[in-house]
Amino acid sequence: METANALLETKYALDTFYFLVCGALVMWMAAGFSMLEAGLVRAKNTTEILTKNVSLYAIACIMYMLMGYSIMYPGEAVSAWWPGFGAILGKDDHELAAVMAGGEDTPYYSKLSDFFFQVVFVATAMSIVSGAVAERMKLWAFLLFAVVMTGFIYPMQGYWKWGGGFLDQAGFLDFAGSGVVHLTGASAALAGVLLLGARKGKYTRDGRVNAIPGANLPLATLGTFILWLGWFGFNGGSELKLSNVGEANAVALVFVNTNMAAAGGVVAALITSRLLFGKADLTMALNGALAGLVAITAEPLTPTPLLATTIGVVGGVLVVFSIVTLDKLKIDDPVGAISVHGTVGIWGLIAVVLSNEEATIGAQLLGLGTILAWVFITALLTWFIIKMVMGIRVSEEHEYEGVDLAECGLEAYPEFTGVQGSGK
Amino acid sequence: METANALLETKYALDTFYFLVCGALVMWMAAGFSMLEAGLVRAKNTTEILTKNVSLYAIACIMYMLMGYSIMYPGEAVSAWWPGFGAILGKDDHELAAVMAGGEDTPYYSKLSDFFFQVVFVATAMSIVSGAVAERMKLWAFLLFAVVMTGFIYPMQGYWKWGGGFLDQAGFLDFAGSGVVHLTGASAALAGVLLLGARKGKYTRDGRVNAIPGANLPLATLGTFILWLGWFGFNGGSELKLSNVGEANAVALVFVNTNMAAAGGVVAALITSRLLFGKADLTMALNGALAGLVAITAEPLTPTPLLATTIGVVGGVLVVFSIVTLDKLKIDDPVGAISVHGTVGIWGLIAVVLSNEEATIGAQLLGLGTILAWVFITALLTWFIIKMVMGIRVSEEHEYEGVDLAECGLEAYPEFTGVQGSGK
Amino acid sequence: METANALLETKYALDTFYFLVCGALVMWMAAGFSMLEAGLVRAKNTTEILTKNVSLYAIACIMYMLMGYSIMYPGEAVSAWWPGFGAILGKDDHELAAVMAGGEDTPYYSKLSDFFFQVVFVATAMSIVSGAVAERMKLWAFLLFAVVMTGFIYPMQGYWKWGGGFLDQAGFLDFAGSGVVHLTGASAALAGVLLLGARKGKYTRDGRVNAIPGANLPLATLGTFILWLGWFGFNGGSELKLSNVGEANAVALVFVNTNMAAAGGVVAALITSRLLFGKADLTMALNGALAGLVAITAEPLTPTPLLATTIGVVGGVLVVFSIVTLDKLKIDDPVGAISVHGTVGIWGLIAVVLSNEEATIGAQLLGLGTILAWVFITALLTWFIIKMVMGIRVSEEHEYEGVDLAECGLEAYPEFTGVQGSGK
Repeated sequence: METANALLETKYALDTFYFLVCGALVMWMAAGFSMLEAGLVRAKNTTEILTKNVSLYAIACIMYMLMGYSIMYPGEAVSAWWPGFGAILGKDDHELAAVMAGGEDTPYYSKLSDFFFQVVFVATAMSIVSGAVAERMKLWAFLLFAVVMTGFIYPMQGYWKWGGGFLDQAGFLDFAGSGVVHLTGASAALAGVLLLGARKGKYTRDGRVNAIPGANLPLATLGTFILWLGWFGFNGGSELKLSNVGEANAVALVFVNTNMAAAGGVVAALITSRLLFGKADLTMALNGALAGLVAITAEPLTPTPLLATTIGVVGGVLVVFSIVTLDKLKIDDPVGAISVHGTVGIWGLIAVVLSNEEATIGAQLLGLGTILAWVFITALLTWFIIKMVMGIRVSEEHEYEGVDLAECGLEAYPEFTGVQGSGK
Repeated sequence: METANALLETKYALDTFYFLVCGALVMWMAAGFSMLEAGLVRAKNTTEILTKNVSLYAIACIMYMLMGYSIMYPGEAVSAWWPGFGAILGKDDHELAAVMAGGEDTPYYSKLSDFFFQVVFVATAMSIVSGAVAERMKLWAFLLFAVVMTGFIYPMQGYWKWGGGFLDQAGFLDFAGSGVVHLTGASAALAGVLLLGARKGKYTRDGRVNAIPGANLPLATLGTFILWLGWFGFNGGSELKLSNVGEANAVALVFVNTNMAAAGGVVAALITSRLLFGKADLTMALNGALAGLVAITAEPLTPTPLLATTIGVVGGVLVVFSIVTLDKLKIDDPVGAISVHGTVGIWGLIAVVLSNEEATIGAQLLGLGTILAWVFITALLTWFIIKMVMGIRVSEEHEYEGVDLAECGLEAYPEFTGVQGSGK
Repeated sequence: METANALLETKYALDTFYFLVCGALVMWMAAGFSMLEAGLVRAKNTTEILTKNVSLYAIACIMYMLMGYSIMYPGEAVSAWWPGFGAILGKDDHELAAVMAGGEDTPYYSKLSDFFFQVVFVATAMSIVSGAVAERMKLWAFLLFAVVMTGFIYPMQGYWKWGGGFLDQAGFLDFAGSGVVHLTGASAALAGVLLLGARKGKYTRDGRVNAIPGANLPLATLGTFILWLGWFGFNGGSELKLSNVGEANAVALVFVNTNMAAAGGVVAALITSRLLFGKADLTMALNGALAGLVAITAEPLTPTPLLATTIGVVGGVLVVFSIVTLDKLKIDDPVGAISVHGTVGIWGLIAVVLSNEEATIGAQLLGLGTILAWVFITALLTWFIIKMVMGIRVSEEHEYEGVDLAECGLEAYPEFTGVQGSGK
């Protein structure tokens, strides 16, 4: 009996550690988004995008601790639509007695490790937004939006699915968040971009689309690799349990499928860009990797590795066409975030039906429709109010000279661009 | 019985693995310091700071294996002040029989995993120094100091606290090293900076302080994220045990609090810099994150997440004022290391009394005073001897043209700064 | 009985998790090679080397899933020389019953976690090649080679050793792959470089060797730190088991020795370069770290930490002389990959006899000779066929203007080098 109890404790420790390690990997994705976005904007807007990324991560953590977590996972929800407001996260965790109690609801990992894992997901959703609105949005307007998004908009739809709300009850399936995280981020980004407008000079009056190349592609590549690595925590941790043979096998399969989908996305996007543009476009290959990852996120457990690769391949092709299409629609997204996380997020949600017998296309469409509508509308409203109160777009002059000096007072690369050359 | 023994072995394996994973995360902080410092110096001094960082990590590992570890954790200490010298680290580890023996002193994780975890802490302390003396100190003088610091100065005070010496006996509390690691690094840095003097052109005769902007802010941001990630190992591993419910909960709380303190530091430093300078200063936000991390390091286990955030907030405010104050005192610290790790390290040690009932302000002051005095004096003496023997400051000419070419014969960015333009 | 079974399941989960964490660390090495190589080439060839690295990783994963894994680890091999072809990797894993069966062949970790761990090794071997052929090889020719290398050449020799083929039966020892991975990569690289020729301007007619400095040394340093971190997974995971006292101790020793060898390599290379060239050459220090890591990879378990450091020291000295020698032979390897992974890989294989009593110099020579010959010949043949079909070298004009624009249509740093200055 004593040994049995000690074993239960050991399993609890192992599952908790698994959560913490996966959470640390997802936290690392904050660095990935920062580097990806910093590499894909122009030098003059780099300090500001870095500031946004560091700050939004901090804000996401604070808002989720203060209110987001208790909205998304309420002790007792008011209804399947409205969870109510709960308490600030405290330091209390599962008591030994509760762990030993046995039965269905016996906790098998630390509550705080769950918070840690969940909070880094919120930051991920918010990181998606910063890239799309880069190079022209005011810093403090963006941070204000981050407060609303991470404290309320994200947790509400998170409750509907992962908190056991109506989308979960309707049979909507989303393993690690192609919808709950990625489509959410993309929907908020789309609302922001529509209200904000394109960067000056991106679309000319005679209908041409000017490519505005990123200033630092090694940085963008590093960011992609960081995200790829972090995604093992993102998807791998979403199995939520590791400590028996079946669960361990499941986590291993999730790792393999996550990796294969990304690999498929790279190859597909590379070949697609070669065929479309005649060149092996690195940024498309990077977006292909991310597209593969987003695509597999809704269901990394039921496909074979070959099917996972294929789901990634479709994601990789889709992302290239989506980026081209958005440019035709004059929706200016400097890093392709709406395509990667939105278009491909939708594909990921639909692809669940390919391998998971429990999925229905109806429930998947209900889920993606609900998330898209809820986030888009609330985000649009929030951006709009912020726009009325303080404005969301920097002045033309600041946009021309770069938002770094205007907003942060610091150039990202003062010695490389020859603009000022101070410090040489 | 057989099952009970096998379970004991499994717990040993889990705790060992937890140590190794946390150690690997702390090792990763070496990359974080390298990137942070390389991003905050001028292009012409970048190769040299990278060389220093790679080399000091290697030196720390070798010196700690040769003598540091056995000083800090002696088998039998001579006294509570003087541990004596011990053997070089061998490859022997705990025998199965010892693990099975039961009783208070039964080892429950691999000794070598402990060494691995400890050695990366030494390197962290030493990394703090390199940033403060950047852009003007001779490479080989610095490396010589690293030998003394990592082989003797650090392990001695480490013994006093973590090795069970007189500070530990006096009730001084320092969970993961706000004092033992961070204040130690900052005290050595301060001694070096005072002996070395400011960089040419930093302080003008008429009392102005010239900002000398870093050459690569994305790199500095990356470094900060790396440190943030590594800190989960730094604090999380310092619980020293994971394998039961109480310990697993404790490690989870440490992860959460570490993260929240950093988040609080970012927001506080960002707002403080906005109020003081009118701009959202990225480098202050980064230092705010690090300040939050340093502040929570002395006690990440007893605060609630809300208190942890607050401790980080105070750290984030403090670090901005400390950086401004040091500049007024003409103490030139290019990366703000003394403020981040020293000023805020002291705050962290004092903040222990806010949540830990066992802490006394007296013991905390004794600990911080002892560490500061011991490290500052021995470091000053060491720097002074090195200065007499070989000099510690590069020539004015070398400082003007950059230490990279003089010391390393290589430019960090030969094609970006237009100085030489070779290889284009 | 029930508890005993549950414990067996927990151990299975722990060993699987250990594999997945180590695999994730090795996957991270793909980012390390990318950054290292991107930092050491000229700006104009950076986008292309990044594209190669991202793509080769994806190709390695797909080819190894399709055929490589079943060649290297066949269910039933045809002979000790020829494994035959097997099935594409499926999602089936070990059944609970098989895990509970007991006996010698009882699986104790997830098969898919093994695949994940193995597949990232293949990518590592292929990453070695991209650096050596940088700045002049056609992108698509390289990717075609990657298909053959990762699908066939690597798995064949992998089978001979790790799959239980004739090299394993002959007593050849290679713990984590100084030969199977690193010498393999270097041999393929050498074949490619010989067929490809040196970069224009590297060797002048009058016998001088022009240094062609890398464009971004912080990036190269970051890459080295990433590789160092990843190597804990590479070597640490190759113990293949963690879940009892003896195995946990072994994994800890492997971590310590891996770290010490790298530290030894840094210091040795730094001092050697100081003595030879009069400067503390950062790129040599970085290659010294990698050399230490490669050197210890064949046997990180039997040496003491002091001996491990020494093995790393020899590696660090060797790599400097090897780089100088290859330049004298006009074998142009922009990043020193052949020296780091080939010359030092051979040293690592031989050094096994220093501490492992089961090793014989004869078996080690047989192993290294076989690997070198097999990989060199098949790689040469493959490169040759590709050369005949589509050519392997870019045109002189493209080499002059940089392969980035020609192959990828994107500059890596459009605003820093002043070549085009678009987007400013």
